[in-house]
Amino acid sequence: MDPPAKIMVPDWVWEFHGHTCPFMPIGYRMGIVALRELGVDRIGDHGAFGFSEMGVGHPQTCMMDGFMAATGCTYGKLMMERLNYGKVACILFVPKKGAIRLYLKSEFQDRLGKEEFFTYRKKGIEPSQIPAEVTRKVVDLVLDTSEGELFKQEMLPEFTFNRPRGSFSKMKCSRCGEYVFERYVRMVEGRPECIPCAEYTQTWVNVLKGMQ
Amino acid sequence: MDPPAKIMVPDWVWEFHGHTCPFMPIGYRMGIVALRELGVDRIGDHGAFGFSEMGVGHPQTCMMDGFMAATGCTYGKLMMERLNYGKVACILFVPKKGAIRLYLKSEFQDRLGKEEFFTYRKKGIEPSQIPAEVTRKVVDLVLDTSEGELFKQEMLPEFTFNRPRGSFSKMKCSRCGEYVFERYVRMVEGRPECIPCAEYTQTWVNVLKGMQ
Repeated sequence: MDPPAKIMVPDWVWEFHGHTCPFMPIGYRMGIVALRELGVDRIGDHGAFGFSEMGVGHPQTCMMDGFMAATGCTYGKLMMERLNYGKVACILFVPKKGAIRLYLKSEFQDRLGKEEFFTYRKKGIEPSQIPAEVTRKVVDLVLDTSEGELFKQEMLPEFTFNRPRGSFSKMKCSRCGEYVFERYVRMVEGRPECIPCAEYTQTWVNVLKGMQ
Repeated sequence: MDPPAKIMVPDWVWEFHGHTCPFMPIGYRMGIVALRELGVDRIGDHGAFGFSEMGVGHPQTCMMDGFMAATGCTYGKLMMERLNYGKVACILFVPKKGAIRLYLKSEFQDRLGKEEFFTYRKKGIEPSQIPAEVTRKVVDLVLDTSEGELFKQEMLPEFTFNRPRGSFSKMKCSRCGEYVFERYVRMVEGRPECIPCAEYTQTWVNVLKGMQ
């Protein structure tokens, strides 16, 4: 078995994430392994993609913040997406280098689940309100456990993904006057409008009340 | 007009983002304004939501990284989503406090678009490869311009949003044996399977080749 190695998560990653918890460093470690196995450095610009198999309506998604920070595949640069499979797994895809998937081993998930930290979380207590020694213990468990015990890893030789071609072209909505990138301009009785003005919003998101 | 005020973006935010560009600090400034106007501090745990009106297939999405960093509404904590309207705008929603929308004024978008930085970007040159003095000039423009010149802001009194109720319950996929949060378990001939094993993946994403 590979020897345990104390992994450091830089202070700025904790700062970004906002609280101390075990799943952010799990994602950070996944990212470090993925970069190494694909033979690339952290990505400063674009050209690689991270996928989280996490979804919504369950815990442990903090993994994604660690993975973004380690790999440089940030949500803002459109380099991170959720696949919504409800699994504690991440994929890193670097075109011409390949794709790797890391899954947090079920045995480690079982072991982690026994930690007192999760007794608090299941009561709805936020990480920043959990006693520091309880949090420290579970974070140390994550940082001190060997890669081999943490992750099942597999290369995905046929994996592929592309973003649509980008364009700087934009125009003004004929109703509200705001700029809209062309891809998202919609037509209403012959006039170009933005999606909210056109009332072409997704029905799943009821966030538009009050936006007019 | 409000006086220009030199806004500092902390070093760790640049570190997270990975390169120097003007839209990350625009998002950061949007986040700072949103927090102040709603009367809340940066959110370390959960309980607030950021929405970007950005989509895909266009530039300037880096705004989202700055907004996440400033507000603490990170993608990993499920506190940030795209609305895909193709607009340079962000919304911060804090239940019981309200929601605020900030749009980067069209006049400022026009002014920014004349910067040499975008001549490089339109040629497909990555931010890290653009001469530092060109990048510095456009970033300084963003940091030195007053809030009033940058943003149109509006409160959204009826705005509402909720995540589905969370659950820690999970079970193992009967095919691959990996853990799946219950919400994402699917049935295949009476057996519980994960979405990839069930081949119930979204057809828009062709990323699954090679995952079996």
